[in-house]
Amino acid sequence: MLKGLLDANDHQAAHNREHFARHGVLAVNLMSSPGAGKTALLEKTIDVLGGDLRVAVIEGDLETENDADRIRRKGVPAVQISTGSACHLDAHMVHSALHELELDGVDIVFIENVGNLVCPASFDLGQHVNVALLSTPEGHDKPAKYPVMFRGAQLVVISKADLLPVLDDFDPAYATDCLRQLANTAPVLELSAKTGNGIDAWLDWLLTELGSTRQAAAAVS
Amino acid sequence: MLKGLLDANDHQAAHNREHFARHGVLAVNLMSSPGAGKTALLEKTIDVLGGDLRVAVIEGDLETENDADRIRRKGVPAVQISTGSACHLDAHMVHSALHELELDGVDIVFIENVGNLVCPASFDLGQHVNVALLSTPEGHDKPAKYPVMFRGAQLVVISKADLLPVLDDFDPAYATDCLRQLANTAPVLELSAKTGNGIDAWLDWLLTELGSTRQAAAAVS
Repeated sequence: MLKGLLDANDHQAAHNREHFARHGVLAVNLMSSPGAGKTALLEKTIDVLGGDLRVAVIEGDLETENDADRIRRKGVPAVQISTGSACHLDAHMVHSALHELELDGVDIVFIENVGNLVCPASFDLGQHVNVALLSTPEGHDKPAKYPVMFRGAQLVVISKADLLPVLDDFDPAYATDCLRQLANTAPVLELSAKTGNGIDAWLDWLLTELGSTRQAAAAVS
Repeated sequence: MLKGLLDANDHQAAHNREHFARHGVLAVNLMSSPGAGKTALLEKTIDVLGGDLRVAVIEGDLETENDADRIRRKGVPAVQISTGSACHLDAHMVHSALHELELDGVDIVFIENVGNLVCPASFDLGQHVNVALLSTPEGHDKPAKYPVMFRGAQLVVISKADLLPVLDDFDPAYATDCLRQLANTAPVLELSAKTGNGIDAWLDWLLTELGSTRQAAAAVS
């Protein structure tokens, strides 16, 4: 039964990816533990981008519209998916959300997955890239303890980096080493959505990925 | 299929609970996000208890024996369950771990579940009580966003309370209010495993629960 579910999911995910590509949109799947700062990163990203790029957000949570409301207050369209008891988003949920989202003129769609370091890693949503956030208070060994999530990330963001001075048990080099042990060579960015440190490198990375996605889409069309 | 799985799990969980009760053992299921400080709480608990109570630990992680090693360094028996890709412990895994654990003379078995605020909430392990940790950097709205986990907790521990002075977005009263909105009247303890603040109230709570469990076990035997 699980295989059948995953096949159906992958089929829908491929359809979503084509849909994004057709609109020249980069789709970013943001994953992390609960409270690692995904929404705060998006708020800061929107502030810093100003109007340079247009973004839209799909929010996944078990309950509440809290996160979508935070994004909407920034003047950015956000669709909230309430999963109820489901521990991850799947491609069908994202497809439904896309019916409520106008993609013309949008450059990047961020999909903020349910806060969970395990289950979201197993479900393709049709994104182009996976970004895994690791917040400093969680501890630097998380890539070793949650390998499926971190192995599949194209970028790892060490979030809440402003707390590093008050934490005595988080060494960014150790976290990076854990990631390398998983044979993942993805870049690792230290970032604080509070102070803005690291945000430039994050925007550079997004722009590069957006360029690559558009180039790939142009090549097949 | 899911119903059948849950029925089989509940049957095994009931068996585990009888096994604990027969040995006069309180079984505590510790649940939280990754990195909320479950192992740190256990380390501190073992230190403060000295030899007053004997404890044993069952550790659940996708990968690594890191947590069990930390507990063993305190001279306390610990069995590591590596779940692979499974996002929660189940009653059968706990049953298997119990084959490796001598319960005679033990007062409390702590079961440290996989770091995950969603899936562990749906699986009875045979514990007597659920403790949900909410670490301050995660944000005070987590009970509203992960209601199944927090609704089922007999105690909520606000962990990493030592970080409260450097965080501007965690109000313990707000977190407690979110819990009350779920119709959960469980006590809420602020605790720092680093400074030891709040540890006395935690030990008092454990002792009360141990007494209740032994009284209940004696009544049916």
